[in-house]
Amino acid sequence: MAKTYTVAVVGALGVVGTEMISTLERRSFPVGTLVPLDVASQVGKQVTFQRKEWEVQEAKKGAFTGVDIAIFSAGGDASKVLAPVAVEEGAIVVDNSSHWRMDPDCPLVVPEVNPQDLDWHKGIIANPNCSTTQMLVALKPIHDAAKIKRVVVSTYQAVSGSGQKGILGLDEEAREMLRDGKVSAPRVYNQQIAFNAIPHIDVFEEAGYTKEEYKMVNETKKMLSPDIEVSATCVRIPVWYGHSESINIETEKKISADEVRDMLSRAEGIKVIDNPAQEEYPTPFMSNDEDLTMVGRIREDLTIETGINLWCVSNNVRKGAALNAVQIAETLIKRNLV
Amino acid sequence: MAKTYTVAVVGALGVVGTEMISTLERRSFPVGTLVPLDVASQVGKQVTFQRKEWEVQEAKKGAFTGVDIAIFSAGGDASKVLAPVAVEEGAIVVDNSSHWRMDPDCPLVVPEVNPQDLDWHKGIIANPNCSTTQMLVALKPIHDAAKIKRVVVSTYQAVSGSGQKGILGLDEEAREMLRDGKVSAPRVYNQQIAFNAIPHIDVFEEAGYTKEEYKMVNETKKMLSPDIEVSATCVRIPVWYGHSESINIETEKKISADEVRDMLSRAEGIKVIDNPAQEEYPTPFMSNDEDLTMVGRIREDLTIETGINLWCVSNNVRKGAALNAVQIAETLIKRNLV
Repeated sequence: MAKTYTVAVVGALGVVGTEMISTLERRSFPVGTLVPLDVASQVGKQVTFQRKEWEVQEAKKGAFTGVDIAIFSAGGDASKVLAPVAVEEGAIVVDNSSHWRMDPDCPLVVPEVNPQDLDWHKGIIANPNCSTTQMLVALKPIHDAAKIKRVVVSTYQAVSGSGQKGILGLDEEAREMLRDGKVSAPRVYNQQIAFNAIPHIDVFEEAGYTKEEYKMVNETKKMLSPDIEVSATCVRIPVWYGHSESINIETEKKISADEVRDMLSRAEGIKVIDNPAQEEYPTPFMSNDEDLTMVGRIREDLTIETGINLWCVSNNVRKGAALNAVQIAETLIKRNLV
Repeated sequence: MAKTYTVAVVGALGVVGTEMISTLERRSFPVGTLVPLDVASQVGKQVTFQRKEWEVQEAKKGAFTGVDIAIFSAGGDASKVLAPVAVEEGAIVVDNSSHWRMDPDCPLVVPEVNPQDLDWHKGIIANPNCSTTQMLVALKPIHDAAKIKRVVVSTYQAVSGSGQKGILGLDEEAREMLRDGKVSAPRVYNQQIAFNAIPHIDVFEEAGYTKEEYKMVNETKKMLSPDIEVSATCVRIPVWYGHSESINIETEKKISADEVRDMLSRAEGIKVIDNPAQEEYPTPFMSNDEDLTMVGRIREDLTIETGINLWCVSNNVRKGAALNAVQIAETLIKRNLV
C-alpha cells in the first residue's frame, strides 16, 4: 500500500483552509489522517473530506503530535506562534501567511519556479503572496530564455484575497448599491469596493508603497532572481475570485511575442489564452474553477527594444494560496523530504 | 449684454450629450439658443436646459444654419458625415468621436495641455479619447518640469465609456449574478463585465494592441510630444463612472515624488488626493460628481533613476468627454476664435 500522511490544516474553516481541504481531495493527495485545526470557538464543527466527517480541533500546542505535514492559513499571528510549535512536535510546516516568507531560514517556493529551494528547508516552508505566485509562474520561462531586468506590474485583485469578509462584503455592498443607489457604509475596506477600484492592499509602508507592493518586489527577488527589479501598483477591484495582472517586462535579450507565446504554452502550470482575432484572452471570471495560471494579451512592447506586455489571470484562492501550498507538499514527497 | 452663442449638441439624448447639456448649464456657458440634435426617431423629444424645454431636431444637412458651435457626440460615422456639413453651414465643430482626431488638419485639444493648437483650427476640433485626456492632464506639468520619455499605463475603465448600453448592461448583469449566481448571456461585451475584468476595449489592431491602446499612444504624441513613448494596456472593469489609470513615468530629469505632488497641486484641472498615512487616494466612485482629474499614490519608482508612479482617476463622461468638449468651446471664446 502506498504511503499516506497525517496532514493538519490550520485555519480549516477559512476561505483558503476550505479550499486546501478540497484541493487535497481533488488532487488525491495521500492523506491517511486529516487533522482540521481552527480557533477554540470552532472546535467540534465537522469538515467533510473523502466522504467522511472530520472534527475540528483547536490549533494549539500539542495539536501537531503525529502530524507529518501542517498547512497553515490562519493569519500571520497564528503562524508566528504555532509554526515553530508544529515543527517542534515533528511536522513540516507549509505556511500561507506572510510571516515567514522573508526569513532567510525559510524557503519561499512556487513549485514551477524554484522547487530546489525545498531541499534546504528547516521545518517551515513559506507559500508566497498570491499576486507574486501567479506573476512568477508567467515570468519564469521568460526569465530563463531572455533574462528579465525589470517588471512594471499593475494588479486587479479579487476580494476573496480578504477572506470571507471580502466575499460577503462585496455581496452586501453590491446588493445595497443596486437597491438604494448607494452604500450606507463600506463593509471591508475604507471605501466601498462594489462598483469601485481601490489602489490600496495591505498597509502603507515607506516611500508611498503598500506592503502588498513590496511583497511583489521582495518575493520575486527571493524566488526568481535578486537582479529583477519590480515596480508594482496593487489595486482591489470588485471581482470575487481571480487576480489579474497587467505585466510589462523588460528583458536583457530580445524575445518576440511569438516566442513567449510558444514557451508559455509548453510551460508547467500555464494555459495560454491569446487569440485577438477571436477576441480570446483570460478574465478573472474564467478562473473560478481553474488551477492553471492563464496568460493572454502577449505582445511586444513597442516603446523599448526588448520588452513584452502580457495579461496574467489566476485563481487567487487556488494557485495564489491553497493549490500552491498543496503543490509544495506534493513536491516535498516527490523530493523525499518528508 | 454679453454675447451669447447658438450651440448645437449632436447626440443630445446620449449619455455624453446629456452630460454636455448639463455641463453647459453648470458652467454658465453663454448659450443664447440651444439646438439639440439627434437621430430621426428621437425628433420631438424635449431636453431641459436653463429651466426651459428645447425640442430635439434631426441631425442632418441644414440643421446647422445659424449655429455658432456644434458639439458632436454621436459616434464616428455621424461625425464623419455631418461635421463637414456643420462647418460648411457656418459652425465650428467640437467633435467627441475618434474620427477626426488624427487628421493633421484638426487640432486635438485638452485645454490644460495644448490650448494653443486651437489657433490653427479649420472648423473641426477633435476632443481626445477619455483615457488619454485624463492621463495628459496629469502628465503635462511633469513633462514641462522633467521631460517625459516613456509611459507604461494600465487602465481600469468604467462601463459608461460604452454609453447607455454599458451602464444598463452592467446593471442587468450584476442583478442577475446576485440573484442566480450567473449571467445568462453577456449584455455588452463578449464576456460578462459584472464582477469581472476584460482586457479589451475597442477593436484589436496590429501587433496585438487594441485601438483604445493605440489612441493613448498616438493622441499623446499629437498633443504633448511626439517624443513620448506610451505602452498601454486598456482594461474594462465593473465601475459605472470614472476611469482609473496606473501610470509609470520615466523622465529625462530626476524629479522627486514631493516635487510632483507639489506641482500637480498647483496645476489647472487637478485635485491631488495623496495621503497614505490617512489612507487617502482617489477612487472612481469619488469621481461621480467631480470635474477635476484626481491624482494620488504619487511615489518614486524605486527600480529606475528617474521614474514616478501615480494613480489617476477622472470622470470619463465629464473630463473624458463632455466637460473637455465644453472647455474647448470656452477656450475658443477666450481666444477670440469664434
